[in-house]
Amino acid sequence: VQSEVGSKADAASTNIFFLVYGGTIVFLMQLGFAMLTSGFVRMKNINNILLKNLMDASVASICWYVLGYGFAYGVSDHRSNAFIVLESPHADAASHVPCLFSTFTQHHPYSIAYITTFSSMSSAPPVLPSSHIHEYYFFQWAFVATTATIVSGGVAERITFVGYMSYVVWMVSWVYPVVAHSVWATGGWLHGFVSYAVPEAWYAFNPGSQLAVATPANAAIVARNAVTTTLAAASGGITCLFFKFWRSGQLCVLSTCNGLLSGMVGVTAGPSLVEPWAALICGAFGALVFYGSEIVMHKLKIDDPVGAWSVHGAAGIYSVIFIGFFAKHDYVKEVYGNPVSSRRYGWFYGGHGQVMLCNIIELIFIILWVGINFYLLFGLLYVTKKLRVSAGATKHLSELTGHQTGNYGGSCLCTLVG
Amino acid sequence: VQSEVGSKADAASTNIFFLVYGGTIVFLMQLGFAMLTSGFVRMKNINNILLKNLMDASVASICWYVLGYGFAYGVSDHRSNAFIVLESPHADAASHVPCLFSTFTQHHPYSIAYITTFSSMSSAPPVLPSSHIHEYYFFQWAFVATTATIVSGGVAERITFVGYMSYVVWMVSWVYPVVAHSVWATGGWLHGFVSYAVPEAWYAFNPGSQLAVATPANAAIVARNAVTTTLAAASGGITCLFFKFWRSGQLCVLSTCNGLLSGMVGVTAGPSLVEPWAALICGAFGALVFYGSEIVMHKLKIDDPVGAWSVHGAAGIYSVIFIGFFAKHDYVKEVYGNPVSSRRYGWFYGGHGQVMLCNIIELIFIILWVGINFYLLFGLLYVTKKLRVSAGATKHLSELTGHQTGNYGGSCLCTLVG
Amino acid sequence: VQSEVGSKADAASTNIFFLVYGGTIVFLMQLGFAMLTSGFVRMKNINNILLKNLMDASVASICWYVLGYGFAYGVSDHRSNAFIVLESPHADAASHVPCLFSTFTQHHPYSIAYITTFSSMSSAPPVLPSSHIHEYYFFQWAFVATTATIVSGGVAERITFVGYMSYVVWMVSWVYPVVAHSVWATGGWLHGFVSYAVPEAWYAFNPGSQLAVATPANAAIVARNAVTTTLAAASGGITCLFFKFWRSGQLCVLSTCNGLLSGMVGVTAGPSLVEPWAALICGAFGALVFYGSEIVMHKLKIDDPVGAWSVHGAAGIYSVIFIGFFAKHDYVKEVYGNPVSSRRYGWFYGGHGQVMLCNIIELIFIILWVGINFYLLFGLLYVTKKLRVSAGATKHLSELTGHQTGNYGGSCLCTLVG
Repeated sequence: VQSEVGSKADAASTNIFFLVYGGTIVFLMQLGFAMLTSGFVRMKNINNILLKNLMDASVASICWYVLGYGFAYGVSDHRSNAFIVLESPHADAASHVPCLFSTFTQHHPYSIAYITTFSSMSSAPPVLPSSHIHEYYFFQWAFVATTATIVSGGVAERITFVGYMSYVVWMVSWVYPVVAHSVWATGGWLHGFVSYAVPEAWYAFNPGSQLAVATPANAAIVARNAVTTTLAAASGGITCLFFKFWRSGQLCVLSTCNGLLSGMVGVTAGPSLVEPWAALICGAFGALVFYGSEIVMHKLKIDDPVGAWSVHGAAGIYSVIFIGFFAKHDYVKEVYGNPVSSRRYGWFYGGHGQVMLCNIIELIFIILWVGINFYLLFGLLYVTKKLRVSAGATKHLSELTGHQTGNYGGSCLCTLVG
Repeated sequence: VQSEVGSKADAASTNIFFLVYGGTIVFLMQLGFAMLTSGFVRMKNINNILLKNLMDASVASICWYVLGYGFAYGVSDHRSNAFIVLESPHADAASHVPCLFSTFTQHHPYSIAYITTFSSMSSAPPVLPSSHIHEYYFFQWAFVATTATIVSGGVAERITFVGYMSYVVWMVSWVYPVVAHSVWATGGWLHGFVSYAVPEAWYAFNPGSQLAVATPANAAIVARNAVTTTLAAASGGITCLFFKFWRSGQLCVLSTCNGLLSGMVGVTAGPSLVEPWAALICGAFGALVFYGSEIVMHKLKIDDPVGAWSVHGAAGIYSVIFIGFFAKHDYVKEVYGNPVSSRRYGWFYGGHGQVMLCNIIELIFIILWVGINFYLLFGLLYVTKKLRVSAGATKHLSELTGHQTGNYGGSCLCTLVG
Repeated sequence: VQSEVGSKADAASTNIFFLVYGGTIVFLMQLGFAMLTSGFVRMKNINNILLKNLMDASVASICWYVLGYGFAYGVSDHRSNAFIVLESPHADAASHVPCLFSTFTQHHPYSIAYITTFSSMSSAPPVLPSSHIHEYYFFQWAFVATTATIVSGGVAERITFVGYMSYVVWMVSWVYPVVAHSVWATGGWLHGFVSYAVPEAWYAFNPGSQLAVATPANAAIVARNAVTTTLAAASGGITCLFFKFWRSGQLCVLSTCNGLLSGMVGVTAGPSLVEPWAALICGAFGALVFYGSEIVMHKLKIDDPVGAWSVHGAAGIYSVIFIGFFAKHDYVKEVYGNPVSSRRYGWFYGGHGQVMLCNIIELIFIILWVGINFYLLFGLLYVTKKLRVSAGATKHLSELTGHQTGNYGGSCLCTLVG
């Protein structure tokens, strides 16, 4: 196991280590979200929340394996397009992608229902090392699972279990992969646009997003991400604390938490593109965007128990706009390779507005794509009365549950279908 | 501190980093187990559980240092055997092993009671770098501590403090090292058998088990471990959720958690040897094995508050059998170097059954060794009435505790001896 | 993103990865401290504690960016001194330091109030890669934030919000940087003294302190740190458990936790300088130092709800003394490069007492510097009546808070100023 003395570490291996580490830490956010949401809802709904969070990570990992990852990052050739990968033409390429869909399309391009038999498996040509892409599956899975989980807070105490599971399947198998392929995959129509982009803006662990660490430039970017994320969170939390205090005379823990999150979301579109002082500004305004959005949500009487829209939606949109102003020329060059002479950087540094334009196009595309798809899904759930929990359903619960375990004041950790 | 520009990272150093990282993350499982077990037991026993978990990690680290690590992985020569290392013949070799036992046997081979004096220490020859093996001690310690902790759930609310501490000392100093040396150490009689093996099946963080990451093949294996562990957990959790719902009409958080764990345990015998789709199958059946075992346990009226046997024992046994069927030829070649022509791989891929045979032999050895040793220990504890908490003891508790601190509804975080 | 096959990982990059990893894990301690302190205080003060912990990390990150990091580690030349960095003479050097103060002094050496304009930013010369020091900012920030947090336990339920925030600003901007520069920075007057030193003794994650992992010697030190920290914690916890049991007949979880912490603090002055067996001794006596200090504190009627002084102060002082006895010659040579012939190592190994003398000088300097500064700050807060919460203030709270959210038995997660 021990390497020979004097041999050097492989760069690709160090990157894999970095991705496995990053995915593991991002996955810790599931714990954080479970605790955050549990802290916001009533005691009787905690079991429901915990079950949703366990299930969305589980269902996401399977949907991501069966369809999502292949749609988003499968290796493609002539039949692919700029939005999605529909088949993997090369057998050896497809075998690198840990996605059931790609495995199928590799053999029978037009039939997703083809079941590979054991005999065919044993005759497949040996490819060594055959799994170079597993680390991407794992890292991207931690993202997509986090993205799915965020919504669980926004619909806490409201949505049925069936409705929530439908959302997760639709999100991970279809909606997210198209955005991911468009923005991040080589060949995606928005690839190369300046921005880590909106879905990534929905989580808070930026350093891993550079995907590689083994060269000096990459490592410097990773370190800068850590710094700007920290500073944006700090100024967001402090801003929200004082703003809330000014408005209501209260020092509020919940507002501070959401301010911290909003600050991080606010910088997530490009944590490596801004200076540390800009991250401070970014976080402060991100917190104000959150606060303003919360006021609007209350005025419009839109129900969002944990403020998920205000934190992740409003501050996420703000984030891509912010980058349009504050992306620094040197950093854009370092991250994307654009020469400074192209003037593709933030307006405040003298850029010509391409970054802002690209980001707005990207934003409109994502809002339309996600909006239409979920309008269809939730509309279908609504008309079939699978969307909302009825007022009686939760009351009914305590009478129907059979055995009583756990510490939650006699309540049971088992819950019934919405 | 900063390296010179252009110099490359040492492979051995990157592996040490990987092991320290892995040990740290595995140790996080102590927190998970503490929370899991606390969630299953009655409020009044939480203090007891937390104390047991703190103590088993502490006692394990000392026993592992004084005896266990030396027995399992000490450097040995002519007097060693295939089960255990009884002495370290070379002074320079022994000084690499952070184990008190090895340090002793280095100087006086037949006397464990020899106390190294300060004068002798200062005259020892300088060896630089003298601690290349510390990372193994640390990583393996995180394992053995986790293994010890798992049992704390199975005996929660039942065993006395003295009984539990006796179990930890016996486990870490004697029972586990023999299994570890037999299966994993060079020279162990089961070394090279196909399987990460049962004790490793008792924990859930597989990527670290490859022990190295600095070469492309190792890194690919690490990444595949992360993927298959994720998918097995997901399918285990979902399977258990639906199976429980079908049987009882309840959506049960506790069953889902145990299903997730059973799925991970189910794939742990060889997460790098199976395809991702096989991990899905593995996790689903692992959850059913757990479920079936729970039914049997209830029928037999065997007391296991958190289902530790069903999750870690039953699903662990299932795991090594599963590998006998599903170990893929390419992956066995990648991990163990066996040429495909040897046909040492899973039956479903056309292997000749050696893998299955080896695994069953290993299983029988481990069950016999562990069974006999703990039969002796627990028998001794039983006849001396040190094993079970008497019904009156816990009641007695609240009267005897002196001061009242903490948030647990007036209960005290102090507890009396069983 | 993927590196070319066969290319090797850069050593500097691997070190950056290690620092980002280390900072992330150290920051997890914030969660641990929040839970520890919450477990010690009364239910009604939990919100207050959580808010303080959120705020000290936030305020620390900004103060560390604006002043602290520049004071401690800014690049300096002729105008620097052995205690603090007051300006960064070279433009290109300063741009590497993510500290607002350094950025300012770079342009206008004597004016901290100079606001860099956007126009000047866009004309700054491009420096690539321009952020090699971000990882140090991040890692050191995790330390200073932890140091600040520790005190929150010691003043839990007692100090006002304004008083606590004043403490954090003073600590992170001024008190800590002078200690850090003196002890750790090149050019600091205590630099090269043998000891990781007292402020570092106030946290518990030692492996990261080596700052680099990419060479074999560094990696070996990292691994040894992990082992000695583990063993010292274990023996500290066990010692405290039994000592408390002997004194009071109780098996106490809280004492065990503080014993574990005291053991880790006790070895933190030099975890890489002692043998594993010495770490066992170190932890045991560290726990006794904690226990003795607690008895003295109670006799003197000094109020410290969580025992923060006894764990971090008393055991921290003990730690630097311990190193004076037990620093091993080979390890001192490995870590600091002192030749064994200089006899600069522990007295028990035949050293000539320089280590002990240096550590005592360092200790006296730190105690005087920290003591005088906080005497001034807390004195000012005391005479302006901003220091202590009045008895009525907390009662008043429940009447004034407006809305009721969260699970804490009807209490609100919002709290009022002091």
